[in-house]
Amino acid sequence: MNFLVIGGDAAGMSAASRAKRHRPDLDVTVLEKTADVSYSACGMPYNIADPDRSIEDLVVRRAEIVRDKQGIDLRTGNEATAIDPAARTVSSRDTDDQVHVFNYDKLLIATGAVPIKPDIEGIDQPGVMVLKSLAHGRALKDYIDREKVRQTVIIGMGYIALEMCEALRERGIGVAMVKPRPTFLPWMEATLADAIKTELEAQGVAVHLGHAVERIAAAGGRMTVKGPDLALEADLVLVAVGITPASELAAAAGLQTSVNGAIAVDAHQRTSDQNVYAAGDCADAFHAVTGKRTWIPLALRANRAGWAVADNVCGIDRRLAGLVGSAVFKVFDYQVARTGLNVEEARAAGFEAEAVTIKSRSRAHAHPGSSTIHVHMVGDRGSGRLLGVQMVGRDGVAHRLHAPAVALHAHMSVEQFSQSDLGYAPPFGPTWDPMLTAANQLLKKL
Amino acid sequence: MNFLVIGGDAAGMSAASRAKRHRPDLDVTVLEKTADVSYSACGMPYNIADPDRSIEDLVVRRAEIVRDKQGIDLRTGNEATAIDPAARTVSSRDTDDQVHVFNYDKLLIATGAVPIKPDIEGIDQPGVMVLKSLAHGRALKDYIDREKVRQTVIIGMGYIALEMCEALRERGIGVAMVKPRPTFLPWMEATLADAIKTELEAQGVAVHLGHAVERIAAAGGRMTVKGPDLALEADLVLVAVGITPASELAAAAGLQTSVNGAIAVDAHQRTSDQNVYAAGDCADAFHAVTGKRTWIPLALRANRAGWAVADNVCGIDRRLAGLVGSAVFKVFDYQVARTGLNVEEARAAGFEAEAVTIKSRSRAHAHPGSSTIHVHMVGDRGSGRLLGVQMVGRDGVAHRLHAPAVALHAHMSVEQFSQSDLGYAPPFGPTWDPMLTAANQLLKKL
Repeated sequence: MNFLVIGGDAAGMSAASRAKRHRPDLDVTVLEKTADVSYSACGMPYNIADPDRSIEDLVVRRAEIVRDKQGIDLRTGNEATAIDPAARTVSSRDTDDQVHVFNYDKLLIATGAVPIKPDIEGIDQPGVMVLKSLAHGRALKDYIDREKVRQTVIIGMGYIALEMCEALRERGIGVAMVKPRPTFLPWMEATLADAIKTELEAQGVAVHLGHAVERIAAAGGRMTVKGPDLALEADLVLVAVGITPASELAAAAGLQTSVNGAIAVDAHQRTSDQNVYAAGDCADAFHAVTGKRTWIPLALRANRAGWAVADNVCGIDRRLAGLVGSAVFKVFDYQVARTGLNVEEARAAGFEAEAVTIKSRSRAHAHPGSSTIHVHMVGDRGSGRLLGVQMVGRDGVAHRLHAPAVALHAHMSVEQFSQSDLGYAPPFGPTWDPMLTAANQLLKKL
Repeated sequence: MNFLVIGGDAAGMSAASRAKRHRPDLDVTVLEKTADVSYSACGMPYNIADPDRSIEDLVVRRAEIVRDKQGIDLRTGNEATAIDPAARTVSSRDTDDQVHVFNYDKLLIATGAVPIKPDIEGIDQPGVMVLKSLAHGRALKDYIDREKVRQTVIIGMGYIALEMCEALRERGIGVAMVKPRPTFLPWMEATLADAIKTELEAQGVAVHLGHAVERIAAAGGRMTVKGPDLALEADLVLVAVGITPASELAAAAGLQTSVNGAIAVDAHQRTSDQNVYAAGDCADAFHAVTGKRTWIPLALRANRAGWAVADNVCGIDRRLAGLVGSAVFKVFDYQVARTGLNVEEARAAGFEAEAVTIKSRSRAHAHPGSSTIHVHMVGDRGSGRLLGVQMVGRDGVAHRLHAPAVALHAHMSVEQFSQSDLGYAPPFGPTWDPMLTAANQLLKKL
């Protein structure tokens, strides 16, 4: 049997490697349009922050290892251009413009996602960059060094934008952020979002909300990011307004797509064609809280889905549970975490959402080093179910989030969660953990 | 109606305060044998570590506040001596040896636990101390300062012993620990226990396992802790061999007791007498994993049980879920965490226990500041259920534990847990969290 994979990043390489481990006799071919496979994309902002580290440190497994030790037929510099599900073939073009055709018994589409390119005049000049692939990271780090970048404008305020703020400030580079919408982190409860915005400003980041950007003008080796009521100078402009699933190939082949144009898959990661799987940032998933299709492109899911595809291709039945939308990130000294639904999402999904926002402490009464933890918790008045949690603080937020994430998978009620026997010791929290305090408060409203 | 509480610590004061909040008209009386109420007992080692902090900082609410602001009839220096459930009275003796008799409609026994006093000659001399109540903490801290303690011997190696090691070393005091059993932390998987023992020794603590102690001899203002094959010099001897429920009063009144002699209570915290409740370290609880009675005396449960008693006394039906045996503590730079059952406990409870122990990293591939995390995970071969988790590491262990604790409450299988959508970012863990890696490994054995 022959297993063909389009895309050699997290989902694709996880699937290829695991399939080959399960069945060494299996013919596994991977088509990757860039020169890079198996790298830690999420580590890029932290690597860029450190001028003494090479971006190549992020490579987990080099192409030669994949070919020689793993026995995978890895074709880098080879971009898939068309899928023919009836003929079970994939056409590709390599860097020398040669066209190839590959047959498959089972196919995995793991084409990932691509940065959204907003309609801004001057966006194609060399100093305007994005950050998604290792090639982007390499180009960005190189540009910072070569051009001795002193001032950056970041367009957009999502995860990547916020992580890059910290990376750039770490290197002594000035940062201004700008976006057209008036609300900072609109998916986050206002008190929590404000705490993060205040931290950004304290760290010297200028946050420009509610300003449209129309043009990036170049003059005298610098650029100016311009809108109707704004002009920001920069040596480097980072466009980070979000990503979109790279699903054109799948859509052109007639495969079903869903939310945000992501490729629709079932619990086995199978697309609408029984011989074709999709996994990673190009694929959708079921949300364990709403039961509906969703698109939340993150690294753990990509790896997990890649494994599931390998299992299913090799005859091991593997169904994936839904995801609950857990995400954590770091903004300077703050840890930011979310899981499940916010109030708006919960109401849109048909829940009678109620929420509380509380402030507690990261350590016990009178214990040194304690800091504020903000917890926002959402529950359903009808069923009493826990629907979502958001947290912000300097200490112990990222790992605390794992607990409500598990509770969401288990469809726990707020009352059940409030009765959780969580470990307690003064260096790690108050007797009543901040999450339990939030649950106790929320219970009164349900 | 009249609500009488014996014991003014975590469970007793939580119940008294909440009952008075629910029903300001309720007559609430608290009998407390010491002068102290409402203090953070768990904070004592951390307070003792710091010579510049007063032990009185640990008091959460002073007696005058309880009397004047809360309207609770608090009788400090008043020790309950007998309960008559038929007459619904409690007799007490105050510090002036006056006898009092109190009537009750509803009674809460919150007498806590007392340190076990091993049979060692010379244990009653002034330099031999225990640490359970604030009075003990006050005496201990005072002794260290007054006697200029330079060397301590700790008999026992439980939570308090380990926390006190760190506190004493912090003050530059030499520490030797000794216990008769040959295994360090016998409830913990050997690899994990070894990591902690190695840390203790690296911090200058002498760990003497498998040495019986027969006598504490005094000579020239110092003491010598002696056994058949051991002699350790000390200015201070701390006896920390464990605690036992203070249930004599309840037992003498004919109330049912259970595991370790703890007072048996139902999910409403009611004893075998319908007008008498028990809560805190003197009471038992149901274990949510085994469904059987257990005795795990910890602070969160004491507070939670106190609240539940207040609710039930005031006519608000409150049933408590079982506990899962979560505990975390800090040993120098290490965080130590456990929840659920270990292999021996699981087998004793009738499970077909299988376990794995894995080593992973606290942060992502190539992320600076990463350190080792050890995870031990136990599951049931028959049902696939997750039964318990232990973790040791320098970073992110204590809060990670909350997730498997919640999973145990939800009776999740190892497979369900392995599919948890946990938040990931490089500063906080690898893409596959160490707990997920352990679950993936354990799945292969189930």
